Amino acid sequence: MTQRRWQQIMDIPLTVAAVIFLIAYAWEVIANLNGVPMLIAEIIIAVTWVVFVFDYAVNLVLAEHRWFWFRKHIFDLFVVVLPMLRPLRLLRLVTLLNVLQRRAGTAVRGGVLTYAVGSSLLLVFVAGLAILDTERSITGSQITNLGDGIWWAFVTITTVGYGDIYPATALGRVIAAGVMVAGIALLGVVTATLASWIVERVAAQDELSHVATRREVTELTDQVNQLKHVLLEHATQMAASSGTPAPSSPTSASGASDPLSKRQPLT
Amino acid sequence: MTQRRWQQIMDIPLTVAAVIFLIAYAWEVIANLNGVPMLIAEIIIAVTWVVFVFDYAVNLVLAEHRWFWFRKHIFDLFVVVLPMLRPLRLLRLVTLLNVLQRRAGTAVRGGVLTYAVGSSLLLVFVAGLAILDTERSITGSQITNLGDGIWWAFVTITTVGYGDIYPATALGRVIAAGVMVAGIALLGVVTATLASWIVERVAAQDELSHVATRREVTELTDQVNQLKHVLLEHATQMAASSGTPAPSSPTSASGASDPLSKRQPLT
Amino acid sequence: MTQRRWQQIMDIPLTVAAVIFLIAYAWEVIANLNGVPMLIAEIIIAVTWVVFVFDYAVNLVLAEHRWFWFRKHIFDLFVVVLPMLRPLRLLRLVTLLNVLQRRAGTAVRGGVLTYAVGSSLLLVFVAGLAILDTERSITGSQITNLGDGIWWAFVTITTVGYGDIYPATALGRVIAAGVMVAGIALLGVVTATLASWIVERVAAQDELSHVATRREVTELTDQVNQLKHVLLEHATQMAASSGTPAPSSPTSASGASDPLSKRQPLT
Amino acid sequence: MTQRRWQQIMDIPLTVAAVIFLIAYAWEVIANLNGVPMLIAEIIIAVTWVVFVFDYAVNLVLAEHRWFWFRKHIFDLFVVVLPMLRPLRLLRLVTLLNVLQRRAGTAVRGGVLTYAVGSSLLLVFVAGLAILDTERSITGSQITNLGDGIWWAFVTITTVGYGDIYPATALGRVIAAGVMVAGIALLGVVTATLASWIVERVAAQDELSHVATRREVTELTDQVNQLKHVLLEHATQMAASSGTPAPSSPTSASGASDPLSKRQPLT
Repeated sequence: MTQRRWQQIMDIPLTVAAVIFLIAYAWEVIANLNGVPMLIAEIIIAVTWVVFVFDYAVNLVLAEHRWFWFRKHIFDLFVVVLPMLRPLRLLRLVTLLNVLQRRAGTAVRGGVLTYAVGSSLLLVFVAGLAILDTERSITGSQITNLGDGIWWAFVTITTVGYGDIYPATALGRVIAAGVMVAGIALLGVVTATLASWIVERVAAQDELSHVATRREVTELTDQVNQLKHVLLEHATQMAASSGTPAPSSPTSASGASDPLSKRQPLT
Repeated sequence: MTQRRWQQIMDIPLTVAAVIFLIAYAWEVIANLNGVPMLIAEIIIAVTWVVFVFDYAVNLVLAEHRWFWFRKHIFDLFVVVLPMLRPLRLLRLVTLLNVLQRRAGTAVRGGVLTYAVGSSLLLVFVAGLAILDTERSITGSQITNLGDGIWWAFVTITTVGYGDIYPATALGRVIAAGVMVAGIALLGVVTATLASWIVERVAAQDELSHVATRREVTELTDQVNQLKHVLLEHATQMAASSGTPAPSSPTSASGASDPLSKRQPLT
Repeated sequence: MTQRRWQQIMDIPLTVAAVIFLIAYAWEVIANLNGVPMLIAEIIIAVTWVVFVFDYAVNLVLAEHRWFWFRKHIFDLFVVVLPMLRPLRLLRLVTLLNVLQRRAGTAVRGGVLTYAVGSSLLLVFVAGLAILDTERSITGSQITNLGDGIWWAFVTITTVGYGDIYPATALGRVIAAGVMVAGIALLGVVTATLASWIVERVAAQDELSHVATRREVTELTDQVNQLKHVLLEHATQMAASSGTPAPSSPTSASGASDPLSKRQPLT
Repeated sequence: MTQRRWQQIMDIPLTVAAVIFLIAYAWEVIANLNGVPMLIAEIIIAVTWVVFVFDYAVNLVLAEHRWFWFRKHIFDLFVVVLPMLRPLRLLRLVTLLNVLQRRAGTAVRGGVLTYAVGSSLLLVFVAGLAILDTERSITGSQITNLGDGIWWAFVTITTVGYGDIYPATALGRVIAAGVMVAGIALLGVVTATLASWIVERVAAQDELSHVATRREVTELTDQVNQLKHVLLEHATQMAASSGTPAPSSPTSASGASDPLSKRQPLT
C-alpha cells in the first residue's frame, strides 16, 4: 500500500478521532471532572491519541524517503508527542483545520476568509478550554469557567487586550502567544481580502479603462494571422497569373493555425 | 402584491421606526427612567417592535419560496425575536445600516470608507447605550453614564483596550465581542482603502508606463480590420483586371464570425 | 487683492505663528507656570491666536463666494473659535501639518509615509502636552510630567493600550479619541505603503510577464498604420499600371497621420 | 585597501562579535551575575565593543568622502557610542539583522516575511533581556525573570497590551517604544504579504482574463512585422513583373529586424 492511499483512507477516521477528542476534552474541562467520569474521559482521550500515534507510525513506515518525511513532518511529531502536557494535546486539532481548509478550498478569496474566520472561531473555543484547564487550579486565578476562557481568548485574538484577565502560568502564556499570533494573522487576512476586493471594485467601475486581457490580444493576433493568410494566397494567385514564383507559404500557413506562433522567420 | 413592492413601501416606515426606537431607547437608558416615563418609553419601543414583527410576517407571507426565504433571512428572525433581551433589541438598528449603505452606494471607494466610518460611529453610540443599560445595575459597576459607555466602545473598536473599563456580565461581553469584530473590520476597511489609493497614485505617476487599456486594443483591432478590408478590395480589383478568381474568402468569413470582429462583415 | 494671493503671503507667517504658539504652550505646560511667566506665555499665545483670527477674517472678506467658503472651511472656524478651551487650542497646529504635507508632496509613496510618520510624531508630542495640561490638576492623576504624557500618547497611537495610564476627564477622553483615530490611520498608511511596495517588487521580479504598457501598444498601432500605408501605395501603383482606379486613399492617409484614428470606414 | 574590501573582510568577524556579545549579555542578565563572573561577562562585552569601535574607525578612515560617510552612517555612531547605557548596547545587534536580511534576500515575498518574522523573534528575545536588565532593580518591579520579559515583549509587539506588565522607568519606556514600532511594522508586513498573495491568487484564477503581458504584445508585433515583410516582397515581385518601381523597402527591412522599431516614416 502506498502512503498516499493510506492518507486517503485515514482522512475521515482522523477527523472523527479529533472531534471525539475535542468533545471528551471539553467535557472534562468544563465539568471539571473527578473520579470515574474523569477516568472515562481520559480513556477516550487516550484512545484518540493512540489513533494519531498509529497513523504517524504507519506514515513513517510507508514513506518512500523515511528520513526526508520525518524531517518534513517534524510538526506532526510534536502533535503526537507533546500532548503529554495536557493543554498541548489540543495541537491534535490541527487535523480539523485541514478539513476546514479542504471545504473552503473551492472559492479563492471567500475561501481564504472563510477559512480564517472558521479557524479563528475554533481557536477561540479551544484556547478558552485550554486556558481554563491550565489556569483554573492556581490560587487567585482570574479564569474560573469556560465563559471567562472564551472571553479572554476573544479579547486576545482581536488584540484589544483589556488586561482584566491574563495568563499567569508559563503554559498559559505559551497558549496566549499562539492566540496572539493567530490574531495578527486574522487581522492580516481580513484586511488583505478587503483590499483585494476594493482594488477589484475600483478597477471594475470604469469598463473602458479595463486593462487589455490576454484573450483580447490573442483574438487580435488571430486577426493579423488571417490577414497574412489572405495576403499570401493572393500573392500566390498573382504569381500564378504573372509567372513569377510565390513567396514560401507553408510557414505562414502553420502560423495561421497557431495564434501565437513563435516568430517563424518568413523568408 | 409582490414582496418586492412591499419592501419598497416599507423602506421609509421601517427606517422611521428604527430611529424612533433608538431615540426612545436612548432616552430610557440615559435618563435611567422610572415609573410613568419609563412606561411611555417602553410602550414606544413596543410599538416600533410591532412594526418590525408585522413587516417580518408580511414578508414571510408574500415570499414566493417561503421556506427558502425563511432560511436565508434567519438573521431577520433574530432581529425580531431576540429583542426580548433588552440590549439585543438594538439589533433592530441594522435597518439604519441598510439606509447608510444605500446613501454611500454611489461612489465606490469613498463609499466603502464612508459606510465603514458612519457605521462605526453609529455602533460606538449604540454600543455605549447598550453597555450602560447592561452593566449599570451590577454592583461596583465601572460604567455609570453614557460618557463611560461611549468611551469604552471607542477604546474597544480601535482595539486599544486600556482595560480601565470592561464588561463584567455575559451579555456585556457579547456586546463587546460585536464591537471588537467591528473594530477589526473597520481597521481592515481603512487600510484596504488606503492601499487601493496608494497603488493607484503610484500607477498614475508615470503616464507612459500605464497598462494597455481595453479601448486601445479595441482601436488597434479596428485598424487591422480596416487593413484586411483594403487588402480584399484590392485583391478583388486585381482579380477583375487579370481575370483570375479572387482569393478564397472563407477564411476571412470565419474571421467575421470570430468574437472580436464585431464590425464590418468582410464582404 | 485676491484670496489666493493672500494665502500665499500668509503661508510663512501662519507657520511661524503656529511654531511660536507651540513653543509658548509647551513652555507653559512643561514648566507648569504661575504668576508673571504664565502671563507672558498666555500673552504670546493670545497674539498668535489673533494672527489666526485675522487670517480667517481676511479670508472670509476676500472669498468670492463667501457663504460657500464659510461652509467649506467650517473646520477652520473651529480652529479659531474652539481654542477657548485650553487643550483644543492645539488644533491650531493643523497649520503645521499643511507645511509637512507640502514638503512631503514630491515623492508619492515615500511622501505619504513620511507625512504619516511626521504627523504621528508631532501628534504624540502635542497629545502628550495636551493630556498633561488636562489631567495634571485632577486628584490622583496618573499623568504628572511630560514623559508620562508622551508615553501615554505613544502607547495609545500604537493601539497597544496597556492601561497603566488613561484619561479620566471628558476633555482628556476627547484628546485620546483623536490619538486613537490617528493610530488607526497610521497603521493603515504603514500597511498600505508596504503592500504597494511588495506588490511592485513581486511584479518586477519576472521581467517578461510585465503587463503590456500603453507605449508598447501605441508603437504596435504605428506599425499597423505603416503597413496600411505601404499596402495602399502598392495598390495605387498596381492600379496605375493596370488601369483600374485605386481604392480611395485620402482616408487611409489621414489614418496614417493619426496613430489611433477612430475607425474611419475605409471606402 | 578600499572600504568595500574592508567591509567584506569584517562581515563575519562582526557577526561573530555580535553573537558573542548577545550570549555574554544574556548570561549576565539571566543569571543576574555578581562578583567575578560579572567581571568576566563585562570584559567579554567590552572586547566585542572594541571590535565595533575599531570597525567604525577603520571605515571612517577608508571612506572616500569622509564627512559624507559620517553623516550617512550617523546611526552606526549611535550603535558605537550609545552602548554606554547598558540596555542600549543591544543596538549593536542590528548587525545580526543585516545577516538575516542577506539570508532572506533571495526570494521576494517569502523573503520579506521571513525577515520580518525572524527579526521580530530576535527582537522579542532581546527586548525581553533589555527590559529585565532595566526594570529588575526598581522597587515593586513587575519583571523579575526572563520569562516575564519575553512575555511582556510578546504582548507588546502584537499590540495586545494587557497591562499586567509595563515599563516604569524612562529607559524601559524607550525600549517599549521600539518594540511597539516594530509591532506596527510587523503587522504591516504580514498584512501586505497576505494582500499581495491574495491579489495574485484571485488574478490567477481565471486564466483567460489575465492581463496582456509584454511578451504577448511583442510576439504580436513580430507577426505584424512579418506581414509587412511579405507584403513588400510581394510588391517587389509585382513591380518586377509589371515594370513599375517597388515602394522603398530599406525602411521596412530594418523595421522587420527591430520588433518595436520607433515609427520610421515609410516614405
